[in-house]
Amino acid sequence: MKYVEGLHCIKCAKKYEADPERYLCDDCEDGILDVDYDYSKIKRDWSKEILKNTSDQRIWRYTPLLPIEENTEKPKLAVGNTPIYDIQVLADELGIRKLIIKDDGLNPTASLKDRASAMAVVKAQEAGAVTVACSSTGNAASSLAGNIASMGGRMKSVIFVPDRAPAGKLAQLLVYGADVVSVKGTYEEAFYLSAAAIDKWGWYNRNAAINPYLVEGKKTVSIELAEQLNWQMPDWLVFSVGDGCTIAGAYKGLYDLIQLGFIDKMPRLLGVQAEGCAPITEAFKSNEKLKVSKEDTIADSIAVGKPRNWIKAVRAVRDSEGDMINVSDQKILQMMKTLGEKSGVFAEPAGVAGLAGLKKAVADGIVKKDQSAAVVITGNGLKDIKNARKAAGNPIEVEPDLDKLTEIFKKMGVI
Amino acid sequence: MKYVEGLHCIKCAKKYEADPERYLCDDCEDGILDVDYDYSKIKRDWSKEILKNTSDQRIWRYTPLLPIEENTEKPKLAVGNTPIYDIQVLADELGIRKLIIKDDGLNPTASLKDRASAMAVVKAQEAGAVTVACSSTGNAASSLAGNIASMGGRMKSVIFVPDRAPAGKLAQLLVYGADVVSVKGTYEEAFYLSAAAIDKWGWYNRNAAINPYLVEGKKTVSIELAEQLNWQMPDWLVFSVGDGCTIAGAYKGLYDLIQLGFIDKMPRLLGVQAEGCAPITEAFKSNEKLKVSKEDTIADSIAVGKPRNWIKAVRAVRDSEGDMINVSDQKILQMMKTLGEKSGVFAEPAGVAGLAGLKKAVADGIVKKDQSAAVVITGNGLKDIKNARKAAGNPIEVEPDLDKLTEIFKKMGVI
Repeated sequence: MKYVEGLHCIKCAKKYEADPERYLCDDCEDGILDVDYDYSKIKRDWSKEILKNTSDQRIWRYTPLLPIEENTEKPKLAVGNTPIYDIQVLADELGIRKLIIKDDGLNPTASLKDRASAMAVVKAQEAGAVTVACSSTGNAASSLAGNIASMGGRMKSVIFVPDRAPAGKLAQLLVYGADVVSVKGTYEEAFYLSAAAIDKWGWYNRNAAINPYLVEGKKTVSIELAEQLNWQMPDWLVFSVGDGCTIAGAYKGLYDLIQLGFIDKMPRLLGVQAEGCAPITEAFKSNEKLKVSKEDTIADSIAVGKPRNWIKAVRAVRDSEGDMINVSDQKILQMMKTLGEKSGVFAEPAGVAGLAGLKKAVADGIVKKDQSAAVVITGNGLKDIKNARKAAGNPIEVEPDLDKLTEIFKKMGVI
Repeated sequence: MKYVEGLHCIKCAKKYEADPERYLCDDCEDGILDVDYDYSKIKRDWSKEILKNTSDQRIWRYTPLLPIEENTEKPKLAVGNTPIYDIQVLADELGIRKLIIKDDGLNPTASLKDRASAMAVVKAQEAGAVTVACSSTGNAASSLAGNIASMGGRMKSVIFVPDRAPAGKLAQLLVYGADVVSVKGTYEEAFYLSAAAIDKWGWYNRNAAINPYLVEGKKTVSIELAEQLNWQMPDWLVFSVGDGCTIAGAYKGLYDLIQLGFIDKMPRLLGVQAEGCAPITEAFKSNEKLKVSKEDTIADSIAVGKPRNWIKAVRAVRDSEGDMINVSDQKILQMMKTLGEKSGVFAEPAGVAGLAGLKKAVADGIVKKDQSAAVVITGNGLKDIKNARKAAGNPIEVEPDLDKLTEIFKKMGVI
């Protein structure tokens, strides 16, 4: 970690050594930490040109900006290098000048969370741990299980889930060989049991909200986007927001790039929450402390009623002169279909919430007609076929008869 | 198409012009066509070095070896450039020297079929068609719908399915905006209605088995693999086999590379079918004409009782001095879990059948202990969660109590 100076608390600024097991500030409630780099040292050793000639296409191509030892073994999965698409027909539909979609649902386990979980596998080894644990039924869990599996049996993942978790979501975890602990109780009870177990057995904690290193994994999404755009950032960069880690990570990546002179301005960040669970938007608008929210939305990957990383998220949006906005489940489902039809990108509800929010922000005049935006799709639609069915509409039903088909097609205007 | 000389029938060798709508030989039953190239002309204009400096990472980087006009608009989806993993722990488990896994389930719509569908979108335009149709409930359909969608509304897909098709499989198609025609009848009736409709309205036919150009899309999988392996091919290259197009395509790609001098020998092809549907293995072993088979396997993407491309498939395996083998559904499910645990790659049953077949081929002495192999995983496990659940096993059930968890973990040897 030759470029890491240490950690600091984002509330009281107290400094800490960059110990792989240092998670929180000792003095502050919600004392989330941030990793500090020696940018002048990085600038001396690293450049856009060196990066261009780096053959590793995974997130590890950005190692000088990551809080890891160069030689720690990396999980094998090809995390990162997800495609970007310039989609004029969607830009036109939203009423803006230019729109870039980055499909992070094409990561190996099908979500952006692979970026954080790959980092967790590296940091766990640096902490001397063999087992990494988390409490989740979602993308954090599957990405952890997959990245651990790609270590070929040398490490283990333990995932705590409430017993109401749908069997389909557990299938991916179990195929990856995770020890899945189904807790007879609520999500809270599963969480507290996982915390007790992590404490008792000294496992590494894959909880992006309190682990400062995992956000550094997530920041690769904005660094990668910047490189793909040849360091020309759009006016707006849009993310769906749950616990706040992804947008905070994206901000950190952009901050790093500005310090290095790789980009010259911070794009405005637009954070989008679901109407049924929008505590960070509320804290941002009210300028007050976060209030715990209900979790009433189909976008389960961002349904976080008590987000741990809200301070970093609000800071990211504010410092970038950005904004927060909420969207209804109905608009999310509509946008899932619009995105699929216009681009061939299939997103889960949380994955497309950002784009639905951008549409609203344009309608509300927050994003202007002559501006450009990039939206990161955070998870693959194959993760949530149940909601995809709600978005999809119905097939055309017909007897096996060409005349009848012709009639129906005529009515529908297909022919 | 400056390097394409034309087409020839693989049965009678009759030559045809490379018309985008030329599908079959006029004279032969099962008269599948093959595309011929002027390799000396390609060699003059193209080299490994030029390829190395080609920035397009999609399958279009191999355009000199594709039967397309250079300027036809490409679908936007980032098809190709799927990762390869060198997995020693799996090689050890199978008892061979070296094993490469190529995860083609990370294509944009989550299967290898994207390579053929992207080609269909290009050839349809060259034929002057706006609509492309097929009859399928599987990966051919979803990849067609996704690639068409990525044309941003300028083209359309029409997909014919029998009304027993599960709603989950239709969701992805409908989100991509395909016109899905649910035919009240069998799969055969859906197929014949699609054929009649294609004929009546002049749509482009996305049927890999009879369309010679689509196999040329599929061949990019072996060309890409060869480039990723720095042109050093393993002793064996392994594919699951359904209608025969994928293994035939892989062979064609390798044949091209040998003609160009990019690789110096043809790896042996191992074709793997499911025990419950193995007509091509039977034809290969018996040296007789193909007999239609039942379709009794969980590996639905390769459950093709009457494969159209069996002649090309058998020729590919024979010319490469390869072999064919069958595996049971139980072995497929077991291998789904083994692959997941050892590599973090989540495959659908048909996607992992090749690997299960390789294991059997090693046990049978077909593949030797000192040999190397590469296996292409053809589809993502998220496509078929129902079967993943069968492979996955069960979670550990526990009360929210650390003492009880400790007890269970001790019994299971987790701690």
